[in-house]
Amino acid sequence: MAPVTGLGAEMHALVERLYPLCRSITGDGVRATLDIVGEYIPLRVHEVPTGTQVLDWTVPQEWNIRDAYIADAAGNRVVDFAASSLHVLGYSVPVSATMPLDELRPHLHTLPDHPGWVPYRTSYYRREWGFCLAQETLDAMPDGEYEVCVDSTLADGHLTYAEHVVPGQVTDEVIVSCHVCHPSLANDNLAGIAVATYLARALARRTPYYTYRFLFAPGTIGAITWLARNAERVELIKHGLVLACAGDPGQLTYKQSRRGDAEIDRVMRHVLARSERPHRITEFTPYGYDERQFCSPGFNLGVGSLTRTPYAAYPEYHTSADNPEFVSPEAMADTLDVCREAFAVLDRNRRYLNLSPYGEPQLGRRGLYDALGGRSDTRQAQMAMLWVLNLSDGEHGLLDVAERSGLPFDTVAAAAAALHGAGLIKA
Amino acid sequence: MAPVTGLGAEMHALVERLYPLCRSITGDGVRATLDIVGEYIPLRVHEVPTGTQVLDWTVPQEWNIRDAYIADAAGNRVVDFAASSLHVLGYSVPVSATMPLDELRPHLHTLPDHPGWVPYRTSYYRREWGFCLAQETLDAMPDGEYEVCVDSTLADGHLTYAEHVVPGQVTDEVIVSCHVCHPSLANDNLAGIAVATYLARALARRTPYYTYRFLFAPGTIGAITWLARNAERVELIKHGLVLACAGDPGQLTYKQSRRGDAEIDRVMRHVLARSERPHRITEFTPYGYDERQFCSPGFNLGVGSLTRTPYAAYPEYHTSADNPEFVSPEAMADTLDVCREAFAVLDRNRRYLNLSPYGEPQLGRRGLYDALGGRSDTRQAQMAMLWVLNLSDGEHGLLDVAERSGLPFDTVAAAAAALHGAGLIKA
Amino acid sequence: MAPVTGLGAEMHALVERLYPLCRSITGDGVRATLDIVGEYIPLRVHEVPTGTQVLDWTVPQEWNIRDAYIADAAGNRVVDFAASSLHVLGYSVPVSATMPLDELRPHLHTLPDHPGWVPYRTSYYRREWGFCLAQETLDAMPDGEYEVCVDSTLADGHLTYAEHVVPGQVTDEVIVSCHVCHPSLANDNLAGIAVATYLARALARRTPYYTYRFLFAPGTIGAITWLARNAERVELIKHGLVLACAGDPGQLTYKQSRRGDAEIDRVMRHVLARSERPHRITEFTPYGYDERQFCSPGFNLGVGSLTRTPYAAYPEYHTSADNPEFVSPEAMADTLDVCREAFAVLDRNRRYLNLSPYGEPQLGRRGLYDALGGRSDTRQAQMAMLWVLNLSDGEHGLLDVAERSGLPFDTVAAAAAALHGAGLIKA
Repeated sequence: MAPVTGLGAEMHALVERLYPLCRSITGDGVRATLDIVGEYIPLRVHEVPTGTQVLDWTVPQEWNIRDAYIADAAGNRVVDFAASSLHVLGYSVPVSATMPLDELRPHLHTLPDHPGWVPYRTSYYRREWGFCLAQETLDAMPDGEYEVCVDSTLADGHLTYAEHVVPGQVTDEVIVSCHVCHPSLANDNLAGIAVATYLARALARRTPYYTYRFLFAPGTIGAITWLARNAERVELIKHGLVLACAGDPGQLTYKQSRRGDAEIDRVMRHVLARSERPHRITEFTPYGYDERQFCSPGFNLGVGSLTRTPYAAYPEYHTSADNPEFVSPEAMADTLDVCREAFAVLDRNRRYLNLSPYGEPQLGRRGLYDALGGRSDTRQAQMAMLWVLNLSDGEHGLLDVAERSGLPFDTVAAAAAALHGAGLIKA
Repeated sequence: MAPVTGLGAEMHALVERLYPLCRSITGDGVRATLDIVGEYIPLRVHEVPTGTQVLDWTVPQEWNIRDAYIADAAGNRVVDFAASSLHVLGYSVPVSATMPLDELRPHLHTLPDHPGWVPYRTSYYRREWGFCLAQETLDAMPDGEYEVCVDSTLADGHLTYAEHVVPGQVTDEVIVSCHVCHPSLANDNLAGIAVATYLARALARRTPYYTYRFLFAPGTIGAITWLARNAERVELIKHGLVLACAGDPGQLTYKQSRRGDAEIDRVMRHVLARSERPHRITEFTPYGYDERQFCSPGFNLGVGSLTRTPYAAYPEYHTSADNPEFVSPEAMADTLDVCREAFAVLDRNRRYLNLSPYGEPQLGRRGLYDALGGRSDTRQAQMAMLWVLNLSDGEHGLLDVAERSGLPFDTVAAAAAALHGAGLIKA
Repeated sequence: MAPVTGLGAEMHALVERLYPLCRSITGDGVRATLDIVGEYIPLRVHEVPTGTQVLDWTVPQEWNIRDAYIADAAGNRVVDFAASSLHVLGYSVPVSATMPLDELRPHLHTLPDHPGWVPYRTSYYRREWGFCLAQETLDAMPDGEYEVCVDSTLADGHLTYAEHVVPGQVTDEVIVSCHVCHPSLANDNLAGIAVATYLARALARRTPYYTYRFLFAPGTIGAITWLARNAERVELIKHGLVLACAGDPGQLTYKQSRRGDAEIDRVMRHVLARSERPHRITEFTPYGYDERQFCSPGFNLGVGSLTRTPYAAYPEYHTSADNPEFVSPEAMADTLDVCREAFAVLDRNRRYLNLSPYGEPQLGRRGLYDALGGRSDTRQAQMAMLWVLNLSDGEHGLLDVAERSGLPFDTVAAAAAALHGAGLIKA
């Protein structure tokens, strides 16, 4: 675990700012979220009208909500949207009625196994209204009449998402995607949004090799909308990472792309294996976050997913217990570190061609080799040069060299730079 | 082990009916065997004349035998073909002579390690006569003159084999082969004959996808004869299974085809691995049963072999101890069950093409997906649909989906059926 | 470990003869070495002039040395080249001077961790002079003036190497290479030279399949020179082995070629795995001996390296402790045995084509098969014939057959010979 750095604390503060907002797959909560992120990195915000065909889907109506509550006969709000955005079923249609508890009950969602927690539920594509509440709250509600109010609108409008681009030396792109559709849930996915934001800032400090595109979009429909509107750009996307659950106390988990041997998969495996961090590497599954869309068979992009504890594998998942206390500055800083290390490898993982492939070139006369032979100790830097020369046949990249030689990637990359400088290899 | 079912008992009864007959690679014993099998499933019987060239071989003369014995000076038959068809060396030429024991001894075959058992021996392609007997019997024979008689004929005639076809939806074929050339040996191969017979009956209950061809033929020369006479049909054979040793108490053993990764190999590995049965998977070897011919390099068919204890790996192998008591109804029922399960997978192992391969299709509006999102539990059936969609790229079949997802094949096949019904995938 | 044979003792005697000579990458020490080896096997000696361009390198000036010493004020030689060729830095430029110890000290090389041993050091490509001595000797040298003398010449001349060819049935070649540039070091590489010499003699006893080319050349620059001058011959080299460290007490180590699955790699793995010897198989690295050059990416030859304890992995490496006592007749005989076994496999590892690939050919009528069937024991020779027939599809060689069948290579090769004799397979 990385020490608490300033960045960790800053990312946690961002999570806390975003936490109260009621996000969904459309609506003003998403816009407010992007406004705040836009204070950290410039964003290009896109608004896509309701009804737009996007691949097999249609952009839904926009949902906005002002208030929602259940009040008892005395007028006391026993469940109140103002207290937590989780209390209302996402995409709840408006309702204003009074009804007995028995009639209300089918519209109430609780977690009997965690009686103090409020669950997170949505009904995007079926017209429904409902409330989420603690089992304890429900248990304390006497029979009788209740006033229920959902002051929401579901109407033609827009789906909102945003992009941030860090220009690189080449137009080939790396996409970093995180979902912005969850209401008051910290790990899933405010921590992912915060790490993505600070990752973009870090990458911009020097021009990276690849162009890095950050996508802040609602889950599923957002990624699908982006893919539908960027059919030509997809060919430029060489690698990608979906960020989620980036701040919980669990160990890092990299879920491989559908390909399983995409370069991002190899880079992440390498970086995690070489680091001191406990971690898990898992196979692709067609469930989880937006890797589902990027890795659908028609696109089949080299996009993996980095989380700490994966999707649905911690009890706090999709409950009110996934709050800012559940995510830590240290964990977010650690996730950020791994992303930076991985992209530092990815960015330098070039293939070179040995221009003197017949026998070894004479490194000594180029000042690249210790001139005093016969010593039994060999220097790592010299070994790295020999490895780069030996494997630079157009089929192996520097990550191959690092893996096969067992040398640190940085040493290998430095050796390649020296050989390139001496004109012995070309990119 | 499957419980004793009616089918197990029926198969054992068939073994007992067939047991007394003296089968060989030609002759009336084979015909009588096929007559009995023909009472259970319709057979097309083929008679191929002596001298017919079949691949590198020639159909031999037909052998028939009426009587054979060794009688002592007092006229008592100490070895008698009437007691067991094993007593005569298979393909023994006729002999009628009286000779001292010392002269007779080179013609006598025993099993000194199992003094009470009679061995099974043949001499198909070298003209020879001889007797097989228990070592105990031999030990009890005093020196002196013996009358030896083999009342056999070895003359131009025919080689006999039979086919039974279960028509499928397509003309591509699965061949199921068992040898019918062994005399009174229950596990090798009356149990195989019985399981093949009942498997054919089970498959016929509904039209299978593949056309299933059952071959009842003498070992080696029979398979070679069929292959020589069906050169054009060989191209239609996509999969196959050689059945033998199907009733002993040992665990199931699947011997893979020469290819090692043929679809039948993958199906059998999958079915056996998922079942609760202890079992063995072994590599191909060019010895054993008629997989030797089907997997010769010129044909190289995807034909494996299913046995319980394999060829020559049990002490009773090729002895009088391989009798109907050695095979059980339970074991044969279990072998039959595995064959049925395997062919049920093979028959449904289609490759589909996702017709909406870009992103996920919206399952909800087609009624294929739980519309109430946000729940942390996911249903196996929905996962199966996502997996089928994700892997239906023209390169993966449903078995691939089952193996990669860890889901039961039946669940995967049901998901594919639902998606096919919704027009989302095509075969 | 093989017993002490006459050959082991003969090889050790050759090591002892060669030990005193002062070899380097050029000069009369190499010539004297080749003269002695030439008494055992005929050599073709090549002299390549200084300044010749060889790949990326240039043949250096020739170095010869007559005397070198450090004498104290009393004229006593405290370090004397006459006592050991290691005492002078290889390629030392001439010097004749008197200087205080402090001025001399930067030119003195010792091994503080092994104070009684003299290190081996060179400075081929940087003009330098120096002495190597025991730390104990240095510690005993009082401050004061010392006379230093290196009576060497560094002048235009030649680089010397030699070849010995054992003609084979085909012009395809196996190269066996050993370096001849090290002065008084027994394991590295006089033992390698001795084993190569006796291997050549053994191979010549009957005409091998391949043509075997033995290269006795200085390390690095010698191999590079040979490769530069034999660009067309390189295509004929199908396999190769670099021999070094062939006599120490450690277990055998085979370092695989860059390809990792070259035929020589498979042969060496097979032979070592089947032998009773403890051994190591290691991955290719671009360091070590002249496999570095043969396995450079432009050539990428199937050349591995056989040593006992590998390069730099024993404390005596590149010190005066690597003397004739460090290498044993038994170890050299063992190394020689493995080379002979490996080349015996390599030489017979043909691919055959089954001329009766459809079904099994009838071995019995060709006298290749036990005619009395039905016995449960099968003979290894018959199994080998069935395996050769089954795998002789143009894609598998006899080593494949041996590996897949588990049968000894000799049995497989004998089966192939029998089948070839019967006209059933062709090469």
